[in-house]
Amino acid sequence: MVRYKAVIAYDGTNFNGFQKQPNGRTVQEEVEKTLQKMNNGSPVTIFGSGRTDAGVHAIGQVIHFDYPQERPLERMRFALDTQTPEDIAVSSVEIVADDFHARYHVVEKTYHFKVQIAKPRSPFRRYYAAYYPYPLDLELIRQALPDLLGTHDFTSFCATGGSIEDKVRTIYQANLEVNEAGTELTFIFRGNGFLYKMIRILVGTLLKIGNGRIPADSIPAILEAQDRNAAGPTAHPEGLYLAEVKY
Amino acid sequence: MVRYKAVIAYDGTNFNGFQKQPNGRTVQEEVEKTLQKMNNGSPVTIFGSGRTDAGVHAIGQVIHFDYPQERPLERMRFALDTQTPEDIAVSSVEIVADDFHARYHVVEKTYHFKVQIAKPRSPFRRYYAAYYPYPLDLELIRQALPDLLGTHDFTSFCATGGSIEDKVRTIYQANLEVNEAGTELTFIFRGNGFLYKMIRILVGTLLKIGNGRIPADSIPAILEAQDRNAAGPTAHPEGLYLAEVKY
Repeated sequence: MVRYKAVIAYDGTNFNGFQKQPNGRTVQEEVEKTLQKMNNGSPVTIFGSGRTDAGVHAIGQVIHFDYPQERPLERMRFALDTQTPEDIAVSSVEIVADDFHARYHVVEKTYHFKVQIAKPRSPFRRYYAAYYPYPLDLELIRQALPDLLGTHDFTSFCATGGSIEDKVRTIYQANLEVNEAGTELTFIFRGNGFLYKMIRILVGTLLKIGNGRIPADSIPAILEAQDRNAAGPTAHPEGLYLAEVKY
Repeated sequence: MVRYKAVIAYDGTNFNGFQKQPNGRTVQEEVEKTLQKMNNGSPVTIFGSGRTDAGVHAIGQVIHFDYPQERPLERMRFALDTQTPEDIAVSSVEIVADDFHARYHVVEKTYHFKVQIAKPRSPFRRYYAAYYPYPLDLELIRQALPDLLGTHDFTSFCATGGSIEDKVRTIYQANLEVNEAGTELTFIFRGNGFLYKMIRILVGTLLKIGNGRIPADSIPAILEAQDRNAAGPTAHPEGLYLAEVKY
C-alpha cells in the first residue's frame, strides 16, 4: 500500500457536506467512488483534514488515502481530477509517509468567508457568498479583528452540541479585504484549528459589529463569557471556503 | 399605461434562454409572472433587447413593458428585484416615452465572453466561463482582434438557419483581458448589433488562432468567404454575458 495526499477543491453547493452519510451526495462519497473505479472495484477510504458542512466550499481541502500501487503522480492527479464530477477538482497529488494523517497532523488552516454587499444582490454570487444588505462600517470591523488574534478559549464562538472538550485555539491572522468594485468582502482567518461553525459565528458577530449593533470593543468580553449566546448569529454556509491546510 | 424600461441581470444556468417558450423555464416567463402578481393578476408582456440562449448570462439586459400605474421608481425596482427568483436581479427601473422599444431602438450592445484556462479547471467557474485546456498564445489573438473592427458582412460568423437577411454589422471594440491570476480570459465585444451566435463563433475562431490552428492573419479571408464553414467552432454558451445595451 502507498499513502497518497491530495489537495482538492469543490463547489459545496450541490453537496450535503464533505463527510459520507446516509442522506445526500457528499464529497467523500464521490471521491471514493472514483478511487474504487480506478482501483478495479476495490473500495478505497479517504480521510479529510476536517468536515465541511452542506454548502461550504473548499479551495484547498486535503485528503489522504491508501492505494495498492505507486503510480506516476500527474497521471494519478489527472485520472482523479477528470473522473470525479465537475464540482470537484484535484489540484495536486503526492506520496507521503505511511503514518501521515490528513486530520491528525494539521498544523494550520486558513478559511475565507465571502460576503456580498452589492445592491441589488448579484445573481452570480448567490451560492458563493453570504449576502448582507444592511449598512456596514468596515472600520468598526477592522477595529475588532485584532482582538481575535492569539490564544483564546473560543467557547462563545462554537456551536453547541459538539463533543470537543478543549476549545482553546490560536488565531494567527484575521483580516478583512474588499474587492475593487466594493461589492464583496473577504474575511481571512488563519489559525491552528477552528471549532464547529466557529468561522461562521465569528463573521456573524463581526457583521453585527460593522452594523453598529454590537460595540467594536466587545470581542474580549464575548470571549470571556465562554457562552455561545454572548456572540452574534451564525453566518450562512455559502460564504465559507476552506482555503489552505498546512502540515 | 406607463412604459417602463428596466435593466436586469440573470444567471443563465437554470434558464432555457430569455424568450418564453413551451419547454423549460425562461427569464421572460419569470419576470412576467412577477409583474402579473404585482399587477393584481392582469398579465404584463415584457420585450427584451434581444434573446439570450440557454446557459447565457446577462449583466445588463434591457427590457420594456407597459404597466397601468406610475409608481415610485425605487419601489418598483425593489418589488421586481425581490419578487423575481434569486437568479434574476433588477438593477434599475425608469419611465420612458410611450414609443420606446427595448429591441428596435438599440444603438449599441456590449458582450463579454469568459474563458477559463486554469489547470485544473476550477469547479467554481464551471457555469460561468467556457473552459479551454489547450495551449494559447494570447499575442496571436491580440494580432487578430483589430481585423474584426469596423463594418463587415459577418455571414461567416453567423449560425446558419436564421431569418435575418442583412448580415452587415459594425464592431467598435474587440478586446482581450486576462485576470490577475492568469486563470481567466475575458473577451469584450462592442458593436451596433450581433448576429445569432456571432460572439460564440468569434471566440471559437479566436481560440483556434491562439492555439495556432488558424493563422492570426486569416480574419479578413474568413470575413470575405461569407461562409460559416470558413470560421472556427461555436464556443460554449456558459462563457457569454450580455453586458450592456445602449439606446
